[in-house]
Amino acid sequence: MTAPGTLTGIDLDTAGELAAQLRVDSIRSATSAGSGHPTSSMSAADLLAVLVGRHLRYDWDNPHADDNDHLIFSKGHASPLLYSVYRAVGVVSDEELMTKYRRFGSVLEGHPTPALPWVDVATGSLGQGLPDGVGVALAGKYLDHLPYRVWVLCGDSEMAEGSMWEALDKASHYELSNLIAIVDVNRLGQRGPTELEWNLDAYARRAGAFGARVLTINGHDLGEIDAALTTAADGTTSQPTVVLARTIKGRGFSEVENRNGWHGRPFPTDMAARAIAELGGERSLRVRGPLPDVPSGTAPAPAPVGTSSRPAYSPGEKVATRKAYGDALKALGADHPRVVALDGEVSNSTHADEFAHAYPDRYFEMFIAEQQMVAAAVGLGVRHYVPFASTFAAFFTRAFDFIRMAAVSQANIRLAGSHAGVEIGADGPSQMGLEDLAMMRTVQGSTVLYPSDATSAAALVYAMAERSGISYMRTTRGAYPVLYDARETFPIGGAKVLRSSPDDAVTLIGAGVTLHACLAAAERLAADGIRARVIDLYSVKPIDTAALTAAMAVTDGRLVVAEDHHPEGGIGSAVTAALLETWPRTLRFAHLAVRELPGSGTSEELLAAAGIDAGHIEAAARDLLGSG
Amino acid sequence: MTAPGTLTGIDLDTAGELAAQLRVDSIRSATSAGSGHPTSSMSAADLLAVLVGRHLRYDWDNPHADDNDHLIFSKGHASPLLYSVYRAVGVVSDEELMTKYRRFGSVLEGHPTPALPWVDVATGSLGQGLPDGVGVALAGKYLDHLPYRVWVLCGDSEMAEGSMWEALDKASHYELSNLIAIVDVNRLGQRGPTELEWNLDAYARRAGAFGARVLTINGHDLGEIDAALTTAADGTTSQPTVVLARTIKGRGFSEVENRNGWHGRPFPTDMAARAIAELGGERSLRVRGPLPDVPSGTAPAPAPVGTSSRPAYSPGEKVATRKAYGDALKALGADHPRVVALDGEVSNSTHADEFAHAYPDRYFEMFIAEQQMVAAAVGLGVRHYVPFASTFAAFFTRAFDFIRMAAVSQANIRLAGSHAGVEIGADGPSQMGLEDLAMMRTVQGSTVLYPSDATSAAALVYAMAERSGISYMRTTRGAYPVLYDARETFPIGGAKVLRSSPDDAVTLIGAGVTLHACLAAAERLAADGIRARVIDLYSVKPIDTAALTAAMAVTDGRLVVAEDHHPEGGIGSAVTAALLETWPRTLRFAHLAVRELPGSGTSEELLAAAGIDAGHIEAAARDLLGSG
Repeated sequence: MTAPGTLTGIDLDTAGELAAQLRVDSIRSATSAGSGHPTSSMSAADLLAVLVGRHLRYDWDNPHADDNDHLIFSKGHASPLLYSVYRAVGVVSDEELMTKYRRFGSVLEGHPTPALPWVDVATGSLGQGLPDGVGVALAGKYLDHLPYRVWVLCGDSEMAEGSMWEALDKASHYELSNLIAIVDVNRLGQRGPTELEWNLDAYARRAGAFGARVLTINGHDLGEIDAALTTAADGTTSQPTVVLARTIKGRGFSEVENRNGWHGRPFPTDMAARAIAELGGERSLRVRGPLPDVPSGTAPAPAPVGTSSRPAYSPGEKVATRKAYGDALKALGADHPRVVALDGEVSNSTHADEFAHAYPDRYFEMFIAEQQMVAAAVGLGVRHYVPFASTFAAFFTRAFDFIRMAAVSQANIRLAGSHAGVEIGADGPSQMGLEDLAMMRTVQGSTVLYPSDATSAAALVYAMAERSGISYMRTTRGAYPVLYDARETFPIGGAKVLRSSPDDAVTLIGAGVTLHACLAAAERLAADGIRARVIDLYSVKPIDTAALTAAMAVTDGRLVVAEDHHPEGGIGSAVTAALLETWPRTLRFAHLAVRELPGSGTSEELLAAAGIDAGHIEAAARDLLGSG
Repeated sequence: MTAPGTLTGIDLDTAGELAAQLRVDSIRSATSAGSGHPTSSMSAADLLAVLVGRHLRYDWDNPHADDNDHLIFSKGHASPLLYSVYRAVGVVSDEELMTKYRRFGSVLEGHPTPALPWVDVATGSLGQGLPDGVGVALAGKYLDHLPYRVWVLCGDSEMAEGSMWEALDKASHYELSNLIAIVDVNRLGQRGPTELEWNLDAYARRAGAFGARVLTINGHDLGEIDAALTTAADGTTSQPTVVLARTIKGRGFSEVENRNGWHGRPFPTDMAARAIAELGGERSLRVRGPLPDVPSGTAPAPAPVGTSSRPAYSPGEKVATRKAYGDALKALGADHPRVVALDGEVSNSTHADEFAHAYPDRYFEMFIAEQQMVAAAVGLGVRHYVPFASTFAAFFTRAFDFIRMAAVSQANIRLAGSHAGVEIGADGPSQMGLEDLAMMRTVQGSTVLYPSDATSAAALVYAMAERSGISYMRTTRGAYPVLYDARETFPIGGAKVLRSSPDDAVTLIGAGVTLHACLAAAERLAADGIRARVIDLYSVKPIDTAALTAAMAVTDGRLVVAEDHHPEGGIGSAVTAALLETWPRTLRFAHLAVRELPGSGTSEELLAAAGIDAGHIEAAARDLLGSG
């Protein structure tokens, strides 16, 4: 509810008062916290006053309403400004602002996160808010078909990140006229002048060349701001809009205006008092801007996923897990209307093209821009879509910062990395994912899946659709035999014991290509009367500690782990971390992994050279058994 | 030596013949290998024929000569073309091309790597060759002061990577007129048309807006190519040059020209025969282009590093390791003239600004472009400089693909990530490096260092200068007591036992802030008569297995590891991997790490909330001891 005395759709004079209040509150909150970025907030205060008071269509009492506009602070360090806006619209109290900002346990964190209901995505790693906004705008234009706009406040320093240009490129390619980037060109970065300083012409040429409509303004002239924001949202173009606002860092306090050395520094108490005095003192304006045009609603909760279309494979037939990924994704598209897919120009390799052909309206080609691809997935997730994004496992390393930040955003996204490991063969190490398991396992709250056959891959694609957080599936280039009947289930956190007996002498653990090598090694050992237990570790995180512990007990602590990945942070690391939780009295552990830099060759040559093929697994098992 | 019959500085008619040979050889090599990218090679064959025959100043018999031009295939998948050039200039035989390409154990890998002496950097992850080239060009202009040019063949698909625009931005900022990007605009990517297809105007606007001189040509008109390459290298501008070449994928073979579906596919034998016939048959031209203008020489081997200037700290004084990094880097600059430094606009936080102020000619500000920063380090390393690049630990995740590829390039680069872990406090999780150790450990051949005090940090900066491969130092925001005398040595691969006795009951292992917590916990345990061994694990990779094994033996397998990092892939993982090599009969392991998503707060609050402070270490030790 809008509180009594609240001004709605304020005039420009009131916007000026609001801007002063936002500056004062930015100063007060940072000084009270003892850290923060008041000067980076002050440069953008006029922009936000006009935007929030006159243009942002937002029901502050109903932040999850479908037709609300979106406000993303790509320059997340300006959190004092954002939280001061929250105070002005009445959703955060002055006491909260003054006693909770940057404090332990508070949702008013140093950089915004969706722990606050009005925040879509976590920002603070620069160059990510605008790419995230592209995802939200894609949802609005192509999926929701709702007239909401996505307003993104950008810093000028972050325009040096290539990801910002990936974002503008995709925004123009997809004609996202619902996306408006407001760049606060205050000339000063953390350590000194930015690369382009106040060369707004250079920014304008670049943004224009990338397909944006560009509006250049004085970011402290309320009339110019108002006119630009009116134009930005006028719907007369198919282009995204970039508002380039020339601003002054620290604007409103003469002691710091346009001075270097005041980034990320709150004012000492005496300076804060002088600043507030110069700004005309504290204020307690309560304002609201316009509401969305159409009645507010919220999206229905996603229906449970059906499995009627799930593909079935026959044990023994050779199917690549990447093919099963594509098959299952397409099938999931039939069962689940909110599933969307993205790919980085390799959909014919990842097999995401099956989904793209079946559901072109729910597929977004991101070309070779992995950062933007992950960011778009995060943005689509903001609107409750169920995104799956795919590329080669190796190339997800390009987007690690975005994946890490997606976890801070508590986003629900699904990633699939194909062509993992030396198994890919002749293309060589640039294309080999040998670090992806380590990367994905260390992401907070992540799920890491590594199926070895088509049946389990398909089942796990369905499981990912219902999984929260960041989930990752690693798929394999080559076709290997289907191991499981189509009715088999694969709960996340489980494992499959493919061979076992009470007399097992050693346990062999693999996933993907190395599971097939483990099975072959077990056959060879069996020929010598040595029984080997074989575990399919399809769920790397969470991991099936019980199955591992049981195997360790039966096989007197003898475990061989083989993985097509560097030795650090992958399957071997996951297995030992799980087992060490139980304080094993006996653990004899052989860890086969890719330790040297590989080159080109066939899969077989490269697996042998890395020491992760059946022969090496067999030898490691014999070594643990002392049987030479 | 140039072989008899070799044509030098060829005319355009010969260049036409050479182009046909390059096409034929690209086809032959890919067909013989059974994989590869002939059509992506054929589109650029005319460009390469003119470049290599008439413009590239290169002494093929002396690939490491200082004044050679540089030729980088940013579109590394066109390796058949590159290797066909090598055949044409006589450094690779026809037999090698036909029997070694993409074969196991061969240096003619699927994508080029510096296993070949004429290759500067590994490519194949698109969007990296041009950023690497920026580094080489920086060296040429600002450090070597040599007139060599850096020619980079780029694909059109890779122009969708933001890193390409980071590269052009930095190339124009640093006025790298010695850098020439030739973009092979063949309109077709792996899975279909590129985003901009043959919209050369759009490319031209973008490249021009980013500060390049743009020359647009028909990439199959030898005269136009020749004129453009002449202009590109004319030295009349301070801008980098972008040659936009409109080309046809598969050019020269009518069955595939400009057709989708032929990316990354060799022609079957019968098709290859038709293609070769259409191209006029096999040829055996031997050509050489121009030599460098100035007499060739090679850089002297770097002198051993002196340590005369190394900073000294007094035990007990509080100094942040990031400050020691800056102090030591500056001192190293005095001792070692080839040391150069780069930073991503946070040099006043990483303390790289000390070097920047002392040696501005050897410092390159990369602003907020971490991918370009790492690539520039790789490029500077090509010219035998000793680069140190720094930013927040969290933000190196932005450059993971570049770090991974630097390892494939066998580059020698040094990275320093500051502000690691929840210890940073109020800024919140976006700024916390909690994944960096996992990322850096899983890089092939990497070195990972994590000093806990200023003395060790300074010593390890010096050690990094002499270290091969990718080395990484994690530094801490806060100031903690100096632990070691200035004369102490810190060999990479070692560890320090800070407290020990033959009666130690438990071992506490930490690094950075948690080492100080371990020391505090040991004090508390000592008050109860419990002796704890404390290990400073300053070298995480390689790790001091002997020190760990000895501690495990003395303390009956009881180890507590505390780390300000997610549990996966960090110190705990490194310690257990090392210990499990020795098949311990007894290991009781408590692993304290950051398991939940942190927020803002003070260091103390956040370390306690994560369960990695002295109190939690003490409790874990007591738990292992069964003493409640």
